[in-house]
Amino acid sequence: MRSDIEIARAASKRPIQQIGQTLGIGAGDLVPYGHDKAKVSQPFIDSLQGRPDGKLILVTAINPTPAGEGKTTTTVGLGDGLAAIGKKVAVCIREASLGPCFGMKGGAAGGGRAQVIPMEDMNLHFTGDFHAITSAHNLLAAMIDNHITWGNALDIDIRRITWRRVMDMNDRALRQITTGLGGAANGYARETGFDITVASEVMAILCLARDLADLQDRVGRVVVAVRRDGTPVHARDLKADGAMTVLLRDAMQPNLVQTLEHTPAFVHGGPFANIAHGCNSVIATATALKLADYVVTEAGFGADLGAEKFMNIKCRKAGLAPACVVLVATVRAMKMNGGVAKADLGAEDVAAVTVGCANLGRHMDNIARFGVPVIVAINHFTGDTAGEIAAVQDFVAARGTRAILCRHWAEGSAGITDLAQAVAEVADAGVADFAPLYPDAMGLADKIDTVARLIYGADRAVMDDRIRDRLLSWEAEGYGDLPVCMAKTPYSFTTDPGVRGAPTGFDVPVREVRLSAGAGFVVAICGEIMTMPGLPSAPAAERIGLNAAGQIEGLF
Amino acid sequence: MRSDIEIARAASKRPIQQIGQTLGIGAGDLVPYGHDKAKVSQPFIDSLQGRPDGKLILVTAINPTPAGEGKTTTTVGLGDGLAAIGKKVAVCIREASLGPCFGMKGGAAGGGRAQVIPMEDMNLHFTGDFHAITSAHNLLAAMIDNHITWGNALDIDIRRITWRRVMDMNDRALRQITTGLGGAANGYARETGFDITVASEVMAILCLARDLADLQDRVGRVVVAVRRDGTPVHARDLKADGAMTVLLRDAMQPNLVQTLEHTPAFVHGGPFANIAHGCNSVIATATALKLADYVVTEAGFGADLGAEKFMNIKCRKAGLAPACVVLVATVRAMKMNGGVAKADLGAEDVAAVTVGCANLGRHMDNIARFGVPVIVAINHFTGDTAGEIAAVQDFVAARGTRAILCRHWAEGSAGITDLAQAVAEVADAGVADFAPLYPDAMGLADKIDTVARLIYGADRAVMDDRIRDRLLSWEAEGYGDLPVCMAKTPYSFTTDPGVRGAPTGFDVPVREVRLSAGAGFVVAICGEIMTMPGLPSAPAAERIGLNAAGQIEGLF
Repeated sequence: MRSDIEIARAASKRPIQQIGQTLGIGAGDLVPYGHDKAKVSQPFIDSLQGRPDGKLILVTAINPTPAGEGKTTTTVGLGDGLAAIGKKVAVCIREASLGPCFGMKGGAAGGGRAQVIPMEDMNLHFTGDFHAITSAHNLLAAMIDNHITWGNALDIDIRRITWRRVMDMNDRALRQITTGLGGAANGYARETGFDITVASEVMAILCLARDLADLQDRVGRVVVAVRRDGTPVHARDLKADGAMTVLLRDAMQPNLVQTLEHTPAFVHGGPFANIAHGCNSVIATATALKLADYVVTEAGFGADLGAEKFMNIKCRKAGLAPACVVLVATVRAMKMNGGVAKADLGAEDVAAVTVGCANLGRHMDNIARFGVPVIVAINHFTGDTAGEIAAVQDFVAARGTRAILCRHWAEGSAGITDLAQAVAEVADAGVADFAPLYPDAMGLADKIDTVARLIYGADRAVMDDRIRDRLLSWEAEGYGDLPVCMAKTPYSFTTDPGVRGAPTGFDVPVREVRLSAGAGFVVAICGEIMTMPGLPSAPAAERIGLNAAGQIEGLF
Repeated sequence: MRSDIEIARAASKRPIQQIGQTLGIGAGDLVPYGHDKAKVSQPFIDSLQGRPDGKLILVTAINPTPAGEGKTTTTVGLGDGLAAIGKKVAVCIREASLGPCFGMKGGAAGGGRAQVIPMEDMNLHFTGDFHAITSAHNLLAAMIDNHITWGNALDIDIRRITWRRVMDMNDRALRQITTGLGGAANGYARETGFDITVASEVMAILCLARDLADLQDRVGRVVVAVRRDGTPVHARDLKADGAMTVLLRDAMQPNLVQTLEHTPAFVHGGPFANIAHGCNSVIATATALKLADYVVTEAGFGADLGAEKFMNIKCRKAGLAPACVVLVATVRAMKMNGGVAKADLGAEDVAAVTVGCANLGRHMDNIARFGVPVIVAINHFTGDTAGEIAAVQDFVAARGTRAILCRHWAEGSAGITDLAQAVAEVADAGVADFAPLYPDAMGLADKIDTVARLIYGADRAVMDDRIRDRLLSWEAEGYGDLPVCMAKTPYSFTTDPGVRGAPTGFDVPVREVRLSAGAGFVVAICGEIMTMPGLPSAPAAERIGLNAAGQIEGLF
């Protein structure tokens, strides 16, 4: 079996203009970045507004386990599968972050015969979107400190500046720093730090903004600090919103690439899936829906985090409504949810699979709460036995839904046409009746509690008076109708990453809440969330380099 | 008169493939970035190696004054002028830095009717080269701290890490910082800081490397710290050179754009002109010389810094030899050199012009020391009188050289054909006999002294024993054959920015020396050098934004 990178390199890429043509985008409406990447121009996007939308299909998954689920692989494979059965389709996924590629390994887009290419570019600078976000974020940071240095006319409380800086690098030494040392010429000393770029609120804003005007509005609303009198300081108070928008102008245009089978793929934006909502940009999804009859997209982590935020944040705010959800599961992951250790996954264990399906079942129930039909995709792994596969299929069938075995990793579109047919039928049937889980008008604390109870299966969300008071004060300031963005471990329905399956009888403690006024959500942090990763003892960077043929080695 | 940006916006840009065609670059050998920018592909560059070189013309200037000289404008105008008289020509200039655009104003490439376009892109992210340099630089920084965190097998002296971080932003708060605060998980506390990206040694390396293999060698040689035993730690000891090269792979390919008159312009690299050598990349210049009969390039600051480094660092190391130097002067700058204040420049003062020509004269003498013929370009400003112009021309004629009045700012190529004709004649005559000012074998202290005496007109370079010992130790380590890179004020031949004209009877004190082992020079710092600018009290960023037509306002 060839490696992902070998398959990707052997692929015959088509010129990006040809990929655009399959969606009716003329060469002049593409802004090329090399011969295999392009942005879709803003004027062209504007010209699409009157058109009807295609059908939106969300690919999500059970809670991730070390066994791997292949959510992106299935997203890409389903796109190719729909194309193979003659549908006009586009895939929408997130961009990869540069920094982590030098830690463990690159975040390749898919795998096996279901990949998006060019893989190297997507793991490196791509079209520069993340660099633009880094620049815009750090310009605002520089303008805050500069404002204070020149007299602090806004009376910013320098002890309470919440806007940090960002870098697209795993650099733990920057998590907590003291800036402005060295005397008067360098400003004033204060504590702050860097987050990784994907954790920037600017990233979340770019992914939720409808257009550049909306982007600028949102950037202007960002809260960066409080004044001595306790009132918030916004980016617009520093007059930073215009320049930040200029820095983001090109980045706002969605990127078009292709799958191994030449299906058009929009790869745009990549917000964290914990302190942000974890989906590709609204503008990419909205554009794809105007151009294709079926749009296959994915959300970060498992359905408890990714699909919940996709529905409650992205779809609610962007007026999107999924026609069908594909829930990816694997026999191996079901086994781990059933109590089998990773080292023992090689042995058949039908009973463990059946026990582990409880995790799958709760995710199916959760998706039903949003009024959207669900199909389970069993992403086939070598070593899965017929009995194990049947156990998953029986479990799902007993709930009146189909679980369809998919071999796209090994076979490409030929291995996933059954799922594609089923998805197209369900989407075309128009049975979805999407609604978010809670109304805008519900109180912020109640929204957090609702997600904890209805999605996680918890008894309640627990928060102390300090946090409740903070939420009440935001409601008083007019932020009460925002959705909540839950930041908890993706590995469990609970806040304990070691608890698999479908646990009950637990609380969800809320440690901290943060207002992302520009992105438009209130973050509820339940547990430790790392916003600046570190490098491991032997980082991948040590093995990355160009080979004699000028190809990149070690990135994957 | 229309503003630069109005002229640039009104320009009819040709598709970049058409610009490439004028140099014989096929569309497949260009890597497009949009429709008006492209990189020239590495395989195409490799294919040029057997070809003869065109003639290299350096545009440099007198010491800059607040009156403005128009060096880049003249570089661009001369390119257009040579094209207008039927020559096959290319322009080579530096890329602009993003950070300073948000402080004062954008570094537009040229002005009036002599500009390189697209202006907005060149002042923003352009093709992402500077972002790639930032990433490569900061990856190395992260790997240093990471290495120490995981046990410090190299025994790095954490008090003596010289590799800082970089950001393409004017952010004074980052000049001096403490990192690694917050406990064991975040590493160890130490003092460090950020420089602006153009000050990165990686920038200098990219601009001096012949190819990617040379780039990786140079990156590997970078000295980042010393061990406890005093021996240097190199980037290759941390195994960072391969990954850094991967990050720089695309950035290494030169960028092609066009002038307002559609002359091909390579815009690539932008090292500081004080702690680095201040010229566009070797690979851009070398590629242009293979493709055009005449290549017009420029060097940073005045000829005492820019041309000296162009000759002694870039030409020496890259095997380049200029055929002709154009020295840009203005009547207004001569007047200021003659003692007139900026506010009084409006009044005719022939006597002051004549006195001020002493500055021009010393630069002419200096260029002659390199064996290269010089032509003076008088960049015409409205308000220059016939008498003042004649005074400059008489001064130059008395030295056996021509001073040619140029009106390219107002008229484009039509205003500069006289200079173009003269330059082509001199270059074609083959009278240049280029040699660097000092041999490789000269001692480092003597090299510094040689530049101070022969170029600046000083009595001597002054340095204390600590500095001399440092230079001797580098010679013992094998760095003795490197050229020196002088970092001093550009506003004077002396180290006092207030001293204009052609002063004598002064010393050049060397405050500090630094080894740039990867770039391949020893920096001699004479005076205060700022490597991280700050924003002014009312930064340009506050006025930058998109207008109703989606155009960028306030950047220029």
